[in-house]
Amino acid sequence: MKTAMGSAVPDLTEIHGDIVAAAGRLRGIAVRTPLLECPAALTQGLGRVLIKAEILQRTGSFKFRGAYNFISQLDSDTRSRGIVAFSSGNHAQAVAAVAQMFDTLATIVMPADAPRLKIEATQGYGAQIVLYDRHTESREKIAQSLVDDLGAILVPPYDHLMTIAGQGTVGLEIVAELTQRNLQPDMVLVPCSGGGLVAGIATAIKHSAPEAAIYAVEPESYDDTTRSLQSGRLEYNHGRTPSICDALLVQRPGDITFPINRQLLAGGLVVTDAMARAAMAAAFCHLKIVLEPGGAVALAAVLNKLIDISGKTIIVVCSGGNVDSEVFSDALKVQGEALNNTE
Amino acid sequence: MKTAMGSAVPDLTEIHGDIVAAAGRLRGIAVRTPLLECPAALTQGLGRVLIKAEILQRTGSFKFRGAYNFISQLDSDTRSRGIVAFSSGNHAQAVAAVAQMFDTLATIVMPADAPRLKIEATQGYGAQIVLYDRHTESREKIAQSLVDDLGAILVPPYDHLMTIAGQGTVGLEIVAELTQRNLQPDMVLVPCSGGGLVAGIATAIKHSAPEAAIYAVEPESYDDTTRSLQSGRLEYNHGRTPSICDALLVQRPGDITFPINRQLLAGGLVVTDAMARAAMAAAFCHLKIVLEPGGAVALAAVLNKLIDISGKTIIVVCSGGNVDSEVFSDALKVQGEALNNTE
Repeated sequence: MKTAMGSAVPDLTEIHGDIVAAAGRLRGIAVRTPLLECPAALTQGLGRVLIKAEILQRTGSFKFRGAYNFISQLDSDTRSRGIVAFSSGNHAQAVAAVAQMFDTLATIVMPADAPRLKIEATQGYGAQIVLYDRHTESREKIAQSLVDDLGAILVPPYDHLMTIAGQGTVGLEIVAELTQRNLQPDMVLVPCSGGGLVAGIATAIKHSAPEAAIYAVEPESYDDTTRSLQSGRLEYNHGRTPSICDALLVQRPGDITFPINRQLLAGGLVVTDAMARAAMAAAFCHLKIVLEPGGAVALAAVLNKLIDISGKTIIVVCSGGNVDSEVFSDALKVQGEALNNTE
Repeated sequence: MKTAMGSAVPDLTEIHGDIVAAAGRLRGIAVRTPLLECPAALTQGLGRVLIKAEILQRTGSFKFRGAYNFISQLDSDTRSRGIVAFSSGNHAQAVAAVAQMFDTLATIVMPADAPRLKIEATQGYGAQIVLYDRHTESREKIAQSLVDDLGAILVPPYDHLMTIAGQGTVGLEIVAELTQRNLQPDMVLVPCSGGGLVAGIATAIKHSAPEAAIYAVEPESYDDTTRSLQSGRLEYNHGRTPSICDALLVQRPGDITFPINRQLLAGGLVVTDAMARAAMAAAFCHLKIVLEPGGAVALAAVLNKLIDISGKTIIVVCSGGNVDSEVFSDALKVQGEALNNTE
């Protein structure tokens, strides 16, 4: 069923079953994060925007769900040989935290320029950190050699059905909460890197709300999923254009995630660094939550009207809040100056 | 039953009934705010700390509850003549937002040095703002003359049974959530200004968990409730010592709130500005929520070990998140420098 290069036809019923099973494993362990109402002052009353606040998840991002779903299913012998992962920081913290819960060693390969807060938090969960140069070294190769040396197991950041199933529990919670409020989702916007979160959420939501339009939201220059959805085949990001969205810097969509996303998504939306910063400031001001740049892109797409929300019910996933204080303060300052200039 | 100077014996059963009735009025209107688990990294694993995140309440603080409970019970003729309130900002926003919901005019008396964000947000809800000088003018007198001129009704910030009942719904939610998690509260820490929030919460929690120790937490130099609890009579704050906790600067406990607090509270705790700032930074880093200084004092009391939390279940109320970006960034910066100095 599954082949490389996105040519597989995913079995969505089976994946939905995996998501339901993951929700069972995560019950009482992951946070059932709240769905916050966005005040009219922020949306200018155009539509009803609900924020899925995954920043309130354990380790500060949705990544805990996929990591726990994957690691908890390993047999204890395998798990005891240790865990390896590569990540710029959110998956790193999640894997480290779960490894600590299961009392096994995590070794995490992180870029040397990852946010300091993410590196420190990962160490805080007792993980060993191996730093590498993002521009000259391959994190996959380093991780593989650790796996070979240690006999440890690699926890995939997105391109695995168990990871996708874990992230998909975000979608199940959205569906349950909307049902309770007697609402139907018109649109769901999800930050996208390798595509595991949006693939899981889309599977969960389309199962019960097939009319909902699901969008992947990406940072400028890292819009591989958006372009792949347009062309119908895997598109790559080239060059080393910097982006403030450190959590969303993959080179191409996943082999497992993309066929799901190609089948279920309405399209992709692309936001600039400036838009992400402004969304961080807006969330600070109106929602009282801390968003990291990559966690703010879906909100940024709404606030910049990249999509028409008039009269619609829109779910915006805010996926992570692990951001260095300097970057955060800078976003508040830039936004303050922009407001003063328009007064 | 109720007299000035705190000599009354409050009817706690009646107040508890008022709180239950307020919860009915607020259902589907106020946010049922989440009770977040504090990560062990923050509490050093000493105790289980749960954060009642009232920053996620409508208008960014708990004040919405009391304002709605009061204003919704006015008859429509009275309400249509307009609403007046005096407040440094959180009660202001709450009253303005509720007035807007009921389509009546709010006129709010605010200190000229109130946080800019609070003034702007209050205006954003369509309220008229009257600024005054905190050091030379009496807000009570200005508000009273507005009431006289306009025939409008004054919405009390804390010293009214309907306000206390609204704020007490925070306590009912804490009880319900703890019951669901099969937990008993050992201690509950609540930011305190006029004492309405802590009086309501104490009434709600002691009703079902009489062993719980409830503490009022106040900023240095504004510890009137702490001292009043010690002496058994109303103590005043003197002088004009500045405090970063703009939301907690009253001169003395309320005539209605203090008799309740004297009967129910275990005592008061006092935190410095530096402690409040550090708690704001810790909440940013570990909880991904935005706290204003006054909203952070209860968390500050825990983090600074003003109370022994070893092996205990502690509920910390984070009451508000309406803070100017400069003040917030400054708290992050000061904390970052402090951490660097201890490395």
